Amino acid sequence: MVRSVENGGEAVEISPDHFDPTAVVPEPLPKVVESDGELLNGKSNGDREIVLGRNVHTTCLEVTEPDANDDFTGDKDAFMASILARYRKTLLERTKHHLGYPYNLDFDYGALAQLQHFSINNLGDPFIESNYGVHSRQFEVGVLDWFARLWEIEKDEYWGYITNCGTEGNLHGILVGREVFPDGILYASRETHYSVFKAARMYRMECVKVDTLVSGEIDCADFKVKLIAHKDKPAIINVNIGTTVKGAVDDLDLVIKTLEESGFTHDRFYIHCDGALFGLMMPFVKRAPKVSFKKPIGSVSVSGHKFVGCPMPCGVQITRLEHINALSRDVEYLASRDATIMGSRNGHAPIFLWYTLNKKGYKGFQKEVQKCLRNAHYLKDRLLDAGISAMLNELSSTVVFERPWDEEFVRRWQLACQGNIAHVVVMPNVTIDKLDDFLSELVEKRSTWYQDGKVKPPCIATEVGNENCLCTLHK
Amino acid sequence: MVRSVENGGEAVEISPDHFDPTAVVPEPLPKVVESDGELLNGKSNGDREIVLGRNVHTTCLEVTEPDANDDFTGDKDAFMASILARYRKTLLERTKHHLGYPYNLDFDYGALAQLQHFSINNLGDPFIESNYGVHSRQFEVGVLDWFARLWEIEKDEYWGYITNCGTEGNLHGILVGREVFPDGILYASRETHYSVFKAARMYRMECVKVDTLVSGEIDCADFKVKLIAHKDKPAIINVNIGTTVKGAVDDLDLVIKTLEESGFTHDRFYIHCDGALFGLMMPFVKRAPKVSFKKPIGSVSVSGHKFVGCPMPCGVQITRLEHINALSRDVEYLASRDATIMGSRNGHAPIFLWYTLNKKGYKGFQKEVQKCLRNAHYLKDRLLDAGISAMLNELSSTVVFERPWDEEFVRRWQLACQGNIAHVVVMPNVTIDKLDDFLSELVEKRSTWYQDGKVKPPCIATEVGNENCLCTLHK
Repeated sequence: MVRSVENGGEAVEISPDHFDPTAVVPEPLPKVVESDGELLNGKSNGDREIVLGRNVHTTCLEVTEPDANDDFTGDKDAFMASILARYRKTLLERTKHHLGYPYNLDFDYGALAQLQHFSINNLGDPFIESNYGVHSRQFEVGVLDWFARLWEIEKDEYWGYITNCGTEGNLHGILVGREVFPDGILYASRETHYSVFKAARMYRMECVKVDTLVSGEIDCADFKVKLIAHKDKPAIINVNIGTTVKGAVDDLDLVIKTLEESGFTHDRFYIHCDGALFGLMMPFVKRAPKVSFKKPIGSVSVSGHKFVGCPMPCGVQITRLEHINALSRDVEYLASRDATIMGSRNGHAPIFLWYTLNKKGYKGFQKEVQKCLRNAHYLKDRLLDAGISAMLNELSSTVVFERPWDEEFVRRWQLACQGNIAHVVVMPNVTIDKLDDFLSELVEKRSTWYQDGKVKPPCIATEVGNENCLCTLHK
Repeated sequence: MVRSVENGGEAVEISPDHFDPTAVVPEPLPKVVESDGELLNGKSNGDREIVLGRNVHTTCLEVTEPDANDDFTGDKDAFMASILARYRKTLLERTKHHLGYPYNLDFDYGALAQLQHFSINNLGDPFIESNYGVHSRQFEVGVLDWFARLWEIEKDEYWGYITNCGTEGNLHGILVGREVFPDGILYASRETHYSVFKAARMYRMECVKVDTLVSGEIDCADFKVKLIAHKDKPAIINVNIGTTVKGAVDDLDLVIKTLEESGFTHDRFYIHCDGALFGLMMPFVKRAPKVSFKKPIGSVSVSGHKFVGCPMPCGVQITRLEHINALSRDVEYLASRDATIMGSRNGHAPIFLWYTLNKKGYKGFQKEVQKCLRNAHYLKDRLLDAGISAMLNELSSTVVFERPWDEEFVRRWQLACQGNIAHVVVMPNVTIDKLDDFLSELVEKRSTWYQDGKVKPPCIATEVGNENCLCTLHK
């Protein structure tokens, strides 16, 4: 039996008779697509600046109706096994070359495979059991307690839950802020994650964008001007504990000081700390300022699939118990309480987190953070040595550098880009060997891109500062 | 080495030397807690009506710091393995006794265990690849196409994504409705899922609750009165394709007719169909009215962990492509588009769904739906035979009956309750044998609860109608 699969834009014939599950199918790299969906054969040349990935609709794996005799012949099972085996190979290859997003791809949850057979759902409140018995709240609350300790808040003073991702944490934190201050204005720096601006739109909140420094940190001088201009309304502030693109850490103490100096007493502001990646790294960096509930903050969120590493996205959200009562509502159907954004909640994620936290502990994370910072410095130094503009914030493992000229190279290494800059986030699974491979390939490719002098490496002084820019003008 | 685990409120000593992983630890049933968190020793006797589950904080599995020599001794690994083995036993037992929530607990995803090693994330838009290569969009779009065919909308006319749960689908559908009609009023029946009212609050929308019939369906006479009272503003309507408690299916055609008769032209209303459980069953019920994009509806959502069955909650959201452009925003960092509620998205869920849809196909689902409806009728008939008030809506597999007197019985069978009624949702994993076990236990327990005549079975005529109530007054 031969069935046809569309893979990477080309129809591939799969014959189970000759199928070699060990072969790596060369998945074509995504083609460049302009925002309006039109395919281009090279670099984006329209007015639109943003390069989007390819349209998946042409390459999807169609669901097909089983034949009447499939159970008997086993053909369909064989066909599906072949697709999965090929997919696994692609994942291996793509995982190996990944550098751009802050995901720790190095984990082994083999001991938890036995739980995949269960429909584990923590619907409702983590602290109040629902009538549905197949849950993992005992693991969830264990994980939450660990984070509460990390961020210095007592067990009987916090509330929190394991979210589906960093965005859910931000949506929750800002919603809590809005419920505390219904007429509050949301302040967030320009380099804030897009989910925060999405929250403002969803929640119909007035939102003020604050300027940033070259490092990517919030510019508290501008913050002050804007606070004073809106003194009549309470302030809800999103503080970035590591921005998405530059890994810049907003100065929490300075933000609080600016609020106080602008006449905002502690009962007139709410601070949400978006610690997506760095919220879990910073506690282990010696010189770093502390994120702590001993300071006047309202909530902290962090992603679980980033520094910890997890098969699926997840996150941790911690807030003050006093705030959550404003938001929550008892739901009899659940025999629990509704204070989360989502209703049904993935019960596997807390077990993954619980497992890694137990295995590594505070000390294990400390070691990994130090390794990441060391390797990030290595990458930045090698880039500069090779004459490539690059910047690394002091408290970060996100190395920003000139955007590679060729989109195929960008896609191959799965770099995240914005304007003329790209970044590599040095995570625990990013070794010196991997960085060396990347560096040597970049240096080699660059020598071809820029060999005849017609195209020049971009100037990124605006993004990283003159001192970090090695373009022809600034070097 | 002996470590102590808190389990079920009692400290249990675990010694790896004597640990028997095949032993089932008798997890105490959740204790009854009043809404304010105070423990009661029996039935709720305060003013608050809602009985909440126990407080998890006292029974959680603490994360502990590894000892320096754990790697060498293997003690910590053994300890964690023991916890997981005990937990697995509990899950088996709890899965076996579950009847109350609409989750199909019968699935075998062994073939997909190989993928648990990867951090699969479909961040951004399903149809536009992001730069992050470890994704499963080819599966996701295959699943979406299958649902688009089911609900009769062309591939180039729909947009959709795999959500984290039914709530996310509702949050998305109602947000799309609000973006289409910024000043629209949200209409939803009183028996609508709580996520819809949460959406109204989050999105700061005016919300009008519509009365229901005894069946649980929306009362279109009341709907009409309320529509006419708010004729000046567009209408955004949540239509229930199976309510949470009674499994009642709102009459979509009558809802549309009511809108038209009240003077709302098609460009002045937006209908979101919440098909949490029954959205996937109804297409396979012969007499059932159709949910179809050939009718003037805006979006449909359905849960993936309900009728299909999935280790973690997930759902499918389908809307018209024309609507989504109002909502979405290109995000350069992702090289994709932000039109979903969440940012990072679980890439495993689409593969689970793709796998089951391929295995079962339309025909397989049809068979399962028929089995569920048959078994639900069996349960309802046996309940009535035993003199127990019960109701089953024609298009539903949710059997509503008198709330068992003893909360321990409710917890043991994980029944969902509201006021004086409880329900069993007959899912594909609920066999006649299981129902017989449940029935004989219920009948036996009832004979003790009501033996001396001091306590009487509740009258539930208000909830299920006089004809279904077998209390002393109505039988």
